[in-house]
Amino acid sequence: MLAVLAGGVGAARFLRGLVQIVPTDEIVVVVNTGDDDVFHGLHVSPDIDTITYTLGNGINPDTGWGLAGDTFRVLGALERYGAPTWFRLGDADLATHLYRTERLASGSTLSEVTADIARAWGLGFTVVPMSDDPIATRLSTPDGEELRMQEWFVQLRAGPEVTAVRFEGAATARAAPGVIEALREAEAIVVCPSNPIISIGPILAVPGVLEALQARRARVVGVSPIIAGATVKGPADRLLRSLGHEVSCVGVARLFSAWCSTLVIDEADEARAPQVAAVGTSAVVAPTLMTGPAEAAALARVVLDAVGIAHT
Amino acid sequence: MLAVLAGGVGAARFLRGLVQIVPTDEIVVVVNTGDDDVFHGLHVSPDIDTITYTLGNGINPDTGWGLAGDTFRVLGALERYGAPTWFRLGDADLATHLYRTERLASGSTLSEVTADIARAWGLGFTVVPMSDDPIATRLSTPDGEELRMQEWFVQLRAGPEVTAVRFEGAATARAAPGVIEALREAEAIVVCPSNPIISIGPILAVPGVLEALQARRARVVGVSPIIAGATVKGPADRLLRSLGHEVSCVGVARLFSAWCSTLVIDEADEARAPQVAAVGTSAVVAPTLMTGPAEAAALARVVLDAVGIAHT
Repeated sequence: MLAVLAGGVGAARFLRGLVQIVPTDEIVVVVNTGDDDVFHGLHVSPDIDTITYTLGNGINPDTGWGLAGDTFRVLGALERYGAPTWFRLGDADLATHLYRTERLASGSTLSEVTADIARAWGLGFTVVPMSDDPIATRLSTPDGEELRMQEWFVQLRAGPEVTAVRFEGAATARAAPGVIEALREAEAIVVCPSNPIISIGPILAVPGVLEALQARRARVVGVSPIIAGATVKGPADRLLRSLGHEVSCVGVARLFSAWCSTLVIDEADEARAPQVAAVGTSAVVAPTLMTGPAEAAALARVVLDAVGIAHT
Repeated sequence: MLAVLAGGVGAARFLRGLVQIVPTDEIVVVVNTGDDDVFHGLHVSPDIDTITYTLGNGINPDTGWGLAGDTFRVLGALERYGAPTWFRLGDADLATHLYRTERLASGSTLSEVTADIARAWGLGFTVVPMSDDPIATRLSTPDGEELRMQEWFVQLRAGPEVTAVRFEGAATARAAPGVIEALREAEAIVVCPSNPIISIGPILAVPGVLEALQARRARVVGVSPIIAGATVKGPADRLLRSLGHEVSCVGVARLFSAWCSTLVIDEADEARAPQVAAVGTSAVVAPTLMTGPAEAAALARVVLDAVGIAHT
């Protein structure tokens, strides 16, 4: 069994490669829920949905979120009531949030609903939220305001400087059923090329996760989401810089080295490999830009080879 | 000020006439909420919405419910999750239910949300639910099952025989703010041509309403929804028969006579006028079929004339 730590778009693209080269029923994906938020009373889980829709072949390929060909009738009609509509929820996408919210209100856990939604989309692997308890990523700005992830990233287009990040609720949250077990028992643990601060960071903040990873350090392999000092998508570079980290695969290695033995870095960063090794993490150099499913599968092969896992 | 007791489609059509002949800010419409139900976790108020959409010029004229030109993307997408979709909620319609549900969850009362929704649709009159407390119309069937109104009417297409009707929650409910005051202070109280059993019946079941109506009996005027032994729309005839009432304007007069002094009956029922009078209710004969706004206005004039209210 393989355990995978995942954020949204980057993780979804990597998983499209991974499912091609190992049996899907051997994959357990632990997904960040620090970005979860409530819109119009509905529980939205952006990273879980991006993974589910992408692997279920429903994703809008142009945006990396939402469903291809979706319409925005409900949101348009909500404007009549003065409801805030900056978070663009499509109509078919909204059905997922309605279903999730109703199930949660009826007493199901986020894990249970997530598993049922994944099944409904035909996913062959296990998708599990990092926690069934609410954990909210909060970003501090210089004027003292604290923003939720979607406020900062979507509403304010990642405009304000970020001076600190915390994960509200993490201290008292429990890992979702199966998460710690998966980390303990997996043949290898793969860290997707996701935002180290706000995608992988919240997962690490769940009690027990960091300890479980440290105990398995030799079997943990990550992929740097930073290529040549920048991210392919999302605000990882901006956040790393704001928080005083080096915006490079070396900066990522420093953040991960306590619990991650091996980091796959892009061939563009080959010259940085010795510096990655210097922080105690083995560097594997490979093309990491996933321009399509074939490139994603090639990257997944590199990742599994790095920890000696068989694949096709 | 005029108080109006209202169900859904028949009441909405009558109101389209009434608003043409009296200043709208003098109209308070008390609406049945016994049909309210929860679908996909959302609070749906069918009669309030039919009135709001009709008077806001949004109604689907072919069905009498829902919005003209609405799409059903959300409902279609919910089928993936096995959610029941027999209650046809359109996408723009769903925005209303989302907004209402979120407001209720945030502590607003149904009255408050209803007023804001009416305002958003540009309605000039006051729309008030009969109660802010939940009251559910329950229909008993011969096999002992008890159905909610929408289950019986929409899901089962009014198929099962109905042996009894009760209004769950009514005994402990309170009339919404302003309802009893409106009935006490109105120059006249108009009972729309709505289903006597399941549209007007629930309003009468709200503590204080029947007493207030009895005290104002001379100022209460109704319109029979039964024309020549049948309803124009809906299951009123079927329900009256099932429950042992005469399916005629006379049957309606018997149900209303304790608190309603005057009943407008259709010209097709002119020969029954003496029988209506015999149960103690004055009969006013007029065309009551509201084929369009002009006919609705003409009927509204007859109704106001019957209780001596000035109009244009």
